[in-house]
Amino acid sequence: MKVEVYVTLKREVLDPQGDAVKRSLHELGHKGVTSARVGKYIELEVADGTDPAAIRAMCEQLLANGVIEDFRFELS
Amino acid sequence: MKVEVYVTLKREVLDPQGDAVKRSLHELGHKGVTSARVGKYIELEVADGTDPAAIRAMCEQLLANGVIEDFRFELS
Repeated sequence: MKVEVYVTLKREVLDPQGDAVKRSLHELGHKGVTSARVGKYIELEVADGTDPAAIRAMCEQLLANGVIEDFRFELS
Repeated sequence: MKVEVYVTLKREVLDPQGDAVKRSLHELGHKGVTSARVGKYIELEVADGTDPAAIRAMCEQLLANGVIEDFRFELS
């Protein structure tokens, strides 16, 4: 079973990497970009029937830093 | 207009970060995880009506390294 996990910085946390991306896109001529935020996209293969609560635990224990990051995941 | 960009390592490229994630999940007791791949998830705010071809150009020019990475994006 495939699990897609999205880890993003909380809105109130500064994102210097995203700012650098935005600046670079502007320098490349893409002036319409008003915001860029960089997060993580993690693809997991887990045993069929894995409890979503276990996925949530993986996120909370390892994949996301709850102090500065949010996460969400989709099973497919 | 919001754009979500997913950048993933090509299947044939080794992913040591993903391997470390898998190993750590096993050590935390999540033995059912058979694979972990770590990519990037980039949220952009762009001007309404931006041509998808421009988004594709951003990915090819900056956001993804075409030698080792694939990308896809969704407009919302």
